Amino acid sequence: MKKLSTTLSTLLIVLLSPVIDAQEAHSERTPEYTVAYDYPSQTGVMEVLKRVRGYYKSTSPQTIIDGQTGKVISDFSKPNKHAQVSDGFASEWSYTHGVVLSAFDYITEVSGDQQFFADNTQFFDFVVDHLPYFYEQGETFGKQEKIKNWGRIMNFHALDDCGSIGAAMIKTYLKTKNGDYLKTINRINEHVSKHQFRLSDGTLARHRPQYESLWADDIYMSVPFLANMGVLSGDNRYFDDAVKQILQMAERLYVPEKGLFDHGWSVTSADYDPRFYWARANGWTLMAMVELLGVLPEQYPGRDKILHLYRSMVKSLAELQDGTGFWHNMLDKNNTFLETSATAMFTFAIAKGINQGWINHVYGPVALTGWNAITTRVLANGAVDGTVEATTFAHDNTYYFNRGASIHATHGYGPVLYAGAEIYRLLANDKIEVQKANANSINSTYHYRLKSEWPANQ
Amino acid sequence: MKKLSTTLSTLLIVLLSPVIDAQEAHSERTPEYTVAYDYPSQTGVMEVLKRVRGYYKSTSPQTIIDGQTGKVISDFSKPNKHAQVSDGFASEWSYTHGVVLSAFDYITEVSGDQQFFADNTQFFDFVVDHLPYFYEQGETFGKQEKIKNWGRIMNFHALDDCGSIGAAMIKTYLKTKNGDYLKTINRINEHVSKHQFRLSDGTLARHRPQYESLWADDIYMSVPFLANMGVLSGDNRYFDDAVKQILQMAERLYVPEKGLFDHGWSVTSADYDPRFYWARANGWTLMAMVELLGVLPEQYPGRDKILHLYRSMVKSLAELQDGTGFWHNMLDKNNTFLETSATAMFTFAIAKGINQGWINHVYGPVALTGWNAITTRVLANGAVDGTVEATTFAHDNTYYFNRGASIHATHGYGPVLYAGAEIYRLLANDKIEVQKANANSINSTYHYRLKSEWPANQ
Amino acid sequence: MKKLSTTLSTLLIVLLSPVIDAQEAHSERTPEYTVAYDYPSQTGVMEVLKRVRGYYKSTSPQTIIDGQTGKVISDFSKPNKHAQVSDGFASEWSYTHGVVLSAFDYITEVSGDQQFFADNTQFFDFVVDHLPYFYEQGETFGKQEKIKNWGRIMNFHALDDCGSIGAAMIKTYLKTKNGDYLKTINRINEHVSKHQFRLSDGTLARHRPQYESLWADDIYMSVPFLANMGVLSGDNRYFDDAVKQILQMAERLYVPEKGLFDHGWSVTSADYDPRFYWARANGWTLMAMVELLGVLPEQYPGRDKILHLYRSMVKSLAELQDGTGFWHNMLDKNNTFLETSATAMFTFAIAKGINQGWINHVYGPVALTGWNAITTRVLANGAVDGTVEATTFAHDNTYYFNRGASIHATHGYGPVLYAGAEIYRLLANDKIEVQKANANSINSTYHYRLKSEWPANQ
Repeated sequence: MKKLSTTLSTLLIVLLSPVIDAQEAHSERTPEYTVAYDYPSQTGVMEVLKRVRGYYKSTSPQTIIDGQTGKVISDFSKPNKHAQVSDGFASEWSYTHGVVLSAFDYITEVSGDQQFFADNTQFFDFVVDHLPYFYEQGETFGKQEKIKNWGRIMNFHALDDCGSIGAAMIKTYLKTKNGDYLKTINRINEHVSKHQFRLSDGTLARHRPQYESLWADDIYMSVPFLANMGVLSGDNRYFDDAVKQILQMAERLYVPEKGLFDHGWSVTSADYDPRFYWARANGWTLMAMVELLGVLPEQYPGRDKILHLYRSMVKSLAELQDGTGFWHNMLDKNNTFLETSATAMFTFAIAKGINQGWINHVYGPVALTGWNAITTRVLANGAVDGTVEATTFAHDNTYYFNRGASIHATHGYGPVLYAGAEIYRLLANDKIEVQKANANSINSTYHYRLKSEWPANQ
Repeated sequence: MKKLSTTLSTLLIVLLSPVIDAQEAHSERTPEYTVAYDYPSQTGVMEVLKRVRGYYKSTSPQTIIDGQTGKVISDFSKPNKHAQVSDGFASEWSYTHGVVLSAFDYITEVSGDQQFFADNTQFFDFVVDHLPYFYEQGETFGKQEKIKNWGRIMNFHALDDCGSIGAAMIKTYLKTKNGDYLKTINRINEHVSKHQFRLSDGTLARHRPQYESLWADDIYMSVPFLANMGVLSGDNRYFDDAVKQILQMAERLYVPEKGLFDHGWSVTSADYDPRFYWARANGWTLMAMVELLGVLPEQYPGRDKILHLYRSMVKSLAELQDGTGFWHNMLDKNNTFLETSATAMFTFAIAKGINQGWINHVYGPVALTGWNAITTRVLANGAVDGTVEATTFAHDNTYYFNRGASIHATHGYGPVLYAGAEIYRLLANDKIEVQKANANSINSTYHYRLKSEWPANQ
Repeated sequence: MKKLSTTLSTLLIVLLSPVIDAQEAHSERTPEYTVAYDYPSQTGVMEVLKRVRGYYKSTSPQTIIDGQTGKVISDFSKPNKHAQVSDGFASEWSYTHGVVLSAFDYITEVSGDQQFFADNTQFFDFVVDHLPYFYEQGETFGKQEKIKNWGRIMNFHALDDCGSIGAAMIKTYLKTKNGDYLKTINRINEHVSKHQFRLSDGTLARHRPQYESLWADDIYMSVPFLANMGVLSGDNRYFDDAVKQILQMAERLYVPEKGLFDHGWSVTSADYDPRFYWARANGWTLMAMVELLGVLPEQYPGRDKILHLYRSMVKSLAELQDGTGFWHNMLDKNNTFLETSATAMFTFAIAKGINQGWINHVYGPVALTGWNAITTRVLANGAVDGTVEATTFAHDNTYYFNRGASIHATHGYGPVLYAGAEIYRLLANDKIEVQKANANSINSTYHYRLKSEWPANQ
């Protein structure tokens, strides 16, 4: 079999080779796309989304189990000391799951397919239905610091514990108006708005790794929640805080010459803080801006500054995109590996900007080739491969450079779902006309044109 | 004695070598020049130029044929409906052929070898001798949009149709004074000066790919023609327009922090246009500046600005040159392939700047190693390999990154001829003294010194 | 035929496709540290230092020999025409040996281990004990331009001849007060302070390769000597000159946008000098700044500017460090080889800055991974591998890019010794607490914290 394929490949090389005069051998360079430069279809995109959803659903039964026996608990009339949540991504109260649930909400909004939002509701119902049981468990057997797979759900310590999944919970509430959600939403708001450590100017911060540190990731761990709280409450204080977080974080973390966010910054290193342009941290900030721009009224104070920040980043990202359509784990280092989660975040944020009119339509091919790259990372069973593992705010390139990546880093799932949803919209965007630059070439870009700009359409 | 000292030195090396444990070999790194760091000779350069000319001549018989029968037409007394120009590069009315013809003119100027300019005259005579026949064909059988291999020669639509080859035609006219050329030259001038679309400030532009787009390539497609029109007519309006094109294009396309031109820019994307530093587009702009600087009077308004632009680009290009002497297809991305046409354009433009005194002599080795790189791409039959294929103004790195390259991209021929001509001059530049930094090393740079700066020569 | 090849290609794709497990194949990416991310120990560091010292001692017996017979001379009562210094690094009067001897002095200071400083004293005694003999040789047989292995020790022509080794000599004098050293120290001072060519503003310069050229390397060839002359003499003129050299060199050579020094600059090329960020030249400048900062009084004029320069460079270097912990031979080109001597210089200078409080403690992992990288280049016999060979100030990347590297480039030895000494100190720095970010991972950075910043320690 091996022998056969070798013979065939030799044969094929001979058959397909350009005709080369023996006298005059030369090194013709045929285009080397490792990801085909194809134009996707809505059907194809939806197939990918369903495949990812299928994998997601396979990860957990969403049950409460006895951690000692492993048996499913169905009688909740009295607390079980060993009760815990079943293992698996789809059961977790985590920020990465929050992104998936927000994405499910968005896919349904964009495509009308109700099954995605149904999974979303199912999970949050699962949480609010069983939370009282765990409170009772705590009262009976002594309060636990964490519930396995739900972490610090009863006692938030950090933005990671609540912000991202809280944003998804509000979005679900806004549609289902299930009053049981409100208690948890309010507790999250208490943490984000009151208890989380902030610098004296109100910027959300951590005592990690340095005594007073900012993490770019925290923009996503707070802003989407605050933005949705603004919608839920109608109170501008939440919008104000969201705008403030982005602009004050950017003051320390954004490097205009690069058009990128540094992963972290500390009061102690201040002006001489070394900069590391970790892709996913930039993804979080861009996703957060997009979320806020989506709900902020047009003339809201600070919106123009965020729009400028967003546009400058998109410009810089387009310039840094790899030839495969991916982005590198360290955005400015082309010898770092090609990373899935950030690629998906950028693809989503750029496609969304085009659809909303926040950035120019010429960015179409950047999103398109980003999407084509992503699809090569969605495995046959729907698992999303190539996502960099959890990464602390470090001060050395050696650490960032060598991170691992796998399907087990759940940070990639939500962004891939989001990216697909927005590409689905972009494919149906009727303000834009897409032309293959060279109709007869497999090796051609696509020109995105705004129909209204052309005389024939004016 | 020589033999003895060799023996001794070998012995000495053995004796003085640090004791190296056989177990513990270490990784000595010998220099890894993929292109030998040689000092070329005028004879060697001329051999390369003749080889390229040989290939050029082999590409076409420069005849008029019957497109249906393939037979050569020799009777031009009555029009043939199927008359067309024979296939092959040397027959084409194209901008890449224009560069070759201008280069032929220049080689003869520089070396005194008349055969190059003779080919130049031969082609333009072929054109003007047969154009009336094609007009007659059009009147008899209905006007064609294009003549095969001469394209839109009767009806220019774009700068690509006429600017570059028009510049070559003027240069030829200035020497031969063949009055038959003037009609075509005037028609080209009509297109460039009057009919080509311009922005409201007079900058030459296109309705492609966006409604109002600037292409860096258009600097070469217009400025050399305008510069030569200025010489031909003695009318400063042409110089003014040429200066204006460079400076106004630069305003939108030149990125001072990079010292490079963006390939294209559109009114629609304006401040947030993503930048792609495609090598050949930078080659065109640099070639155009050199052409204009060559004819513009010393104190001409704007000349100082163009000189600064040129010098800044050369500085940046020297810093970006690859270790092989080539430049990369995307100038700022060292993981893109090494491209021939741009390398040749830069080599020409830098060597010319040294010869003319426009840039400092320290740039000598940049041109030298550029030339050494180029020679590895001229095949035994004179074909120029490794030139990137035609490339549209795109907005995604995926497209630019993956372009193909081959001997069939004719953009490389003219630049290689130009580069050789200027290196030929540089080798004979008697204001400069060239010293190998380390006379006994194969691994040494060459120091270029301006003799007049050294006391012994003052 | 077309059909056949299509069929074949389809077949081939099927046959050659990677075998994908239907269950869940994926390409997990495990971290790829080529240098283990370990936390070193003082014992381990000291073992490396002793190993390098062992190699150093093996390179030469430090004797005077008859160059014709090769026999050791022990009778110095009358001059021998063929007397010379024995071959080998440990016998040489050279700037690279100077770095080793300064490092030996420092290791003893830092560790208390006297054997290092003893080698230092031994060499300088060897020199001053035999210099009179060579003067006598010159008087008797005619003065030689150079003494083999001691070069221009009797007649300095360049900073390379005396500055670096002179600095080491003063340090030794300050401890041993051996009055015989003073005559040579004063002669060195005459050359550095009076005879070496300077630009009209007093900046030390060379007539190589251009008529008036600055070399970043000369900052190290002068400043450590001047700094130590300031200490020896108590005369501020030396500090003033040292400060001036750094700041005036920086004015021409330092590129703030890059945070790096250009290797060289010439009056002739001025504003359009092309920039080449050769790693070792940056190492020399950083080492020189560290040396000067170590002796300059806190409020000395210009100290704040040097501190800013130093901090800016460290920030930039941290950002450019390779994923292995090394730096590249051309700092801004990640396709150039990983170079030992510069990596060692940066590691030393950064670790020292942390220990002295000149830069923030967050830079700890940069020095740590630098050291881990260095240790992979110290061979079993103590030879230091991977150091780039001597490199002239060139104007083309082709030259810099392709330099060789080996254990015979002695520039690496002193820096490796210095780096080890400073890491040895850093490991014992009790103001700092080091925490592995993820205790259970081989794949983790270390957080460096200043104890005094944390409430528990306040």
